[in-house]
Amino acid sequence: MLFHVRMDVNLPVDMPADIANDIKTREKAYSQDLQRSGKWRHIWRLAGEYANYSIFDVESNAELHDILVGLPLFPYMKISVTPLCRHPSSIRDDDI
Amino acid sequence: MLFHVRMDVNLPVDMPADIANDIKTREKAYSQDLQRSGKWRHIWRLAGEYANYSIFDVESNAELHDILVGLPLFPYMKISVTPLCRHPSSIRDDDI
Amino acid sequence: MLFHVRMDVNLPVDMPADIANDIKTREKAYSQDLQRSGKWRHIWRLAGEYANYSIFDVESNAELHDILVGLPLFPYMKISVTPLCRHPSSIRDDDI
Amino acid sequence: MLFHVRMDVNLPVDMPADIANDIKTREKAYSQDLQRSGKWRHIWRLAGEYANYSIFDVESNAELHDILVGLPLFPYMKISVTPLCRHPSSIRDDDI
Amino acid sequence: MLFHVRMDVNLPVDMPADIANDIKTREKAYSQDLQRSGKWRHIWRLAGEYANYSIFDVESNAELHDILVGLPLFPYMKISVTPLCRHPSSIRDDDI
Amino acid sequence: MLFHVRMDVNLPVDMPADIANDIKTREKAYSQDLQRSGKWRHIWRLAGEYANYSIFDVESNAELHDILVGLPLFPYMKISVTPLCRHPSSIRDDDI
Amino acid sequence: MLFHVRMDVNLPVDMPADIANDIKTREKAYSQDLQRSGKWRHIWRLAGEYANYSIFDVESNAELHDILVGLPLFPYMKISVTPLCRHPSSIRDDDI
Amino acid sequence: MLFHVRMDVNLPVDMPADIANDIKTREKAYSQDLQRSGKWRHIWRLAGEYANYSIFDVESNAELHDILVGLPLFPYMKISVTPLCRHPSSIRDDDI
Amino acid sequence: MLFHVRMDVNLPVDMPADIANDIKTREKAYSQDLQRSGKWRHIWRLAGEYANYSIFDVESNAELHDILVGLPLFPYMKISVTPLCRHPSSIRDDDI
Amino acid sequence: MLFHVRMDVNLPVDMPADIANDIKTREKAYSQDLQRSGKWRHIWRLAGEYANYSIFDVESNAELHDILVGLPLFPYMKISVTPLCRHPSSIRDDDI
Repeated sequence: MLFHVRMDVNLPVDMPADIANDIKTREKAYSQDLQRSGKWRHIWRLAGEYANYSIFDVESNAELHDILVGLPLFPYMKISVTPLCRHPSSIRDDDI
Repeated sequence: MLFHVRMDVNLPVDMPADIANDIKTREKAYSQDLQRSGKWRHIWRLAGEYANYSIFDVESNAELHDILVGLPLFPYMKISVTPLCRHPSSIRDDDI
Repeated sequence: MLFHVRMDVNLPVDMPADIANDIKTREKAYSQDLQRSGKWRHIWRLAGEYANYSIFDVESNAELHDILVGLPLFPYMKISVTPLCRHPSSIRDDDI
Repeated sequence: MLFHVRMDVNLPVDMPADIANDIKTREKAYSQDLQRSGKWRHIWRLAGEYANYSIFDVESNAELHDILVGLPLFPYMKISVTPLCRHPSSIRDDDI
Repeated sequence: MLFHVRMDVNLPVDMPADIANDIKTREKAYSQDLQRSGKWRHIWRLAGEYANYSIFDVESNAELHDILVGLPLFPYMKISVTPLCRHPSSIRDDDI
Repeated sequence: MLFHVRMDVNLPVDMPADIANDIKTREKAYSQDLQRSGKWRHIWRLAGEYANYSIFDVESNAELHDILVGLPLFPYMKISVTPLCRHPSSIRDDDI
Repeated sequence: MLFHVRMDVNLPVDMPADIANDIKTREKAYSQDLQRSGKWRHIWRLAGEYANYSIFDVESNAELHDILVGLPLFPYMKISVTPLCRHPSSIRDDDI
Repeated sequence: MLFHVRMDVNLPVDMPADIANDIKTREKAYSQDLQRSGKWRHIWRLAGEYANYSIFDVESNAELHDILVGLPLFPYMKISVTPLCRHPSSIRDDDI
Repeated sequence: MLFHVRMDVNLPVDMPADIANDIKTREKAYSQDLQRSGKWRHIWRLAGEYANYSIFDVESNAELHDILVGLPLFPYMKISVTPLCRHPSSIRDDDI
Repeated sequence: MLFHVRMDVNLPVDMPADIANDIKTREKAYSQDLQRSGKWRHIWRLAGEYANYSIFDVESNAELHDILVGLPLFPYMKISVTPLCRHPSSIRDDDI
């Protein structure tokens, strides 16, 4: 089951660089693990913004929620979730 | 080069069914041709809305514009475009 | 799996009463069938508005979408969907 | 009498963990007491957000207000209240 | 129990004057009956707008809803309702 | 001459309790003096929010402004003012 | 007493030219009479928009309302009113 | 050439009073110099808000910009500018 | 003097093609005359939208207004104007 | 390929002047290098605001993103990007 998620990151401008880097390193590892597992299908950067559009493939709303609140950057993010379903014009078998 | 596009369709409630169906049939064919060519990478329905999120892979802003204004449903759509680029955490080679 | 749905109805003011009544009658029957089946868990009227908040319990985003686009009033509605999950403070076994 | 309430929580990112945990513990106990009493009928988490939709069953606007301002998280919440009433299509006796 | 209601009226510009006048005449009578009964405590015009702020004193959300949907102008109105309660600084016994 | 005013209070979460209490005590006295004088006709709490709707009866815009900027809570408030006038349906002599 | 008013005009695109011209001619005469009387102090066009900012000098909210609803273009306008008062930095005796 | 400017002032609540007073004193002098020169034609307070509407008469966009960024309160202001032109109904020779 | 203008075009979906084409042909000629004269410096299409961003170089607000209301598509446009001035970092002599 | 970018700068009011000046000096040098290279075609100040509209001419969304996140002021900016394409009425060969 697919979900469209927009994440906007807003780190405090006075956060020390080493703390910010540590959070970003953990965020990247967390994201890549989920990408490898197939749960986090796509992630794209919005040009010019510290934000991404992502597509998740999960079993339930609850699984999506657990993934999102587990993000190391979660306390600094504004997140908005849109449930998706197959489009009748789609020709891709996996865009369900 | 990838673009994220949201399309909201708003057909007049009094449009005769045969005219609406003709437009929708042409829209579907138009979309599927572009999906087969690789230009229209993804299309998902937003659950509960007459709207879609799509990902396009085109050579330029101009090519994207020509595709969108050629949509049979274009006169009845509100469209918003977001340019995308590769996310540094992405592990997919083609999400550029 | 639970979803929160807000529906705002906007019938044209010049729609003939018999047509409006026919749509509303079919809407009510459609809704009550889904309530009896357990798919449509709750429906409340917003005081002073032609709108409702509803809670759906479905298998997937796709099932929710099919239910919503099948509403006789769908062409006259603005719908917004929010996926829900269990709140850690909830004491109700079925509010999952 | 039923009310629909949306609560968005916004704890300062630099609040010490023990203070935050203490507030959350008291919040949970407060909420569960009210759920047991029947005043707080439902509480659902919005997937991906530190927010909830709740349904309250109270005697009056004043009782609702007293409950909400008594929330340990109240100083950190944005709250919006919608009065509900029975929907003519509802088949549940208690959704009044 | 008090409620604050904003009503914005939007009559079609091409509505024949006699129909509009008939609706307004019935609206006025309907409003004045409710004012006399004490249910509709206050009604004020917003300067420069075809809109009013009103204060209702009713037994329940349901009673408020029934009053509002019964307004002859209801199909042409946008209505927004806010539940009120006594302000701790109020010195008026009846502003509860 | 009547004015409708909405006030939303936003005290810093880290304001010491004694300072906050002192401001609130002075605010209450200030408000009640004006209520007794007839200038501040009504004040109602919005259920679930640290906000009020008030009705002022003043000689001029300037008098209203002086009253509002004199509020002890003024530096912490967002205020919006709407000039009112008599509604043609009103039956109350003093709702002018 | 001064008020700032923004008026946005929205004539139907299919209104016959002679009807539109008649309304505009009456609007101009109505406005100029009020300007000559001193009630309508200023009127400026917003560059590129069918809209104006105006300053009115009236005795009361009620007088302002009567002037605005009497505008021949009133049924086609969106109007928003802001009460003004003297700015402490003003050096003009009449900007009160 | 005339411009309509709205300025909303937002001083930090913890700014020491002497610093705030110094800025305000310089702001007032700066404004009154420009009023005397004829560049700053009008300034009105919005009732109940720490904000003003002003009318400037300048040679160019650049001159307006230089005046506005020179305001002692500029770092604490939100400013929005609207270019004006003569209204065809205006009877004042200087409202150009 | 430069102005940034956004124009959004909204032709009625039922406008006969020959009428629409006639307006568009006149619009194009009108625009190109102004481009040749140097008044209309730039015009760009927003990808995927029936809208443009334009830069005008005019003597005054009034000249800009006259140009914009003279557009054959003006009755079908939403227009928003922003006055520009030279950026201190600009290296182009003519971007004033 | 052209992009329209709006940048709003929001420096903390308590940033020491030498730090702010250092950032602005580097920002100016960075911008002027890109202007000389032809990547940053235009930059205009919005009159009265600490903001600019810019036009970039880049090879791809990715190149635009890299330029924008490299801005010394990036952490203090709100940026919004709009992809442009040639307008059919344009007579300038380079506005593509």
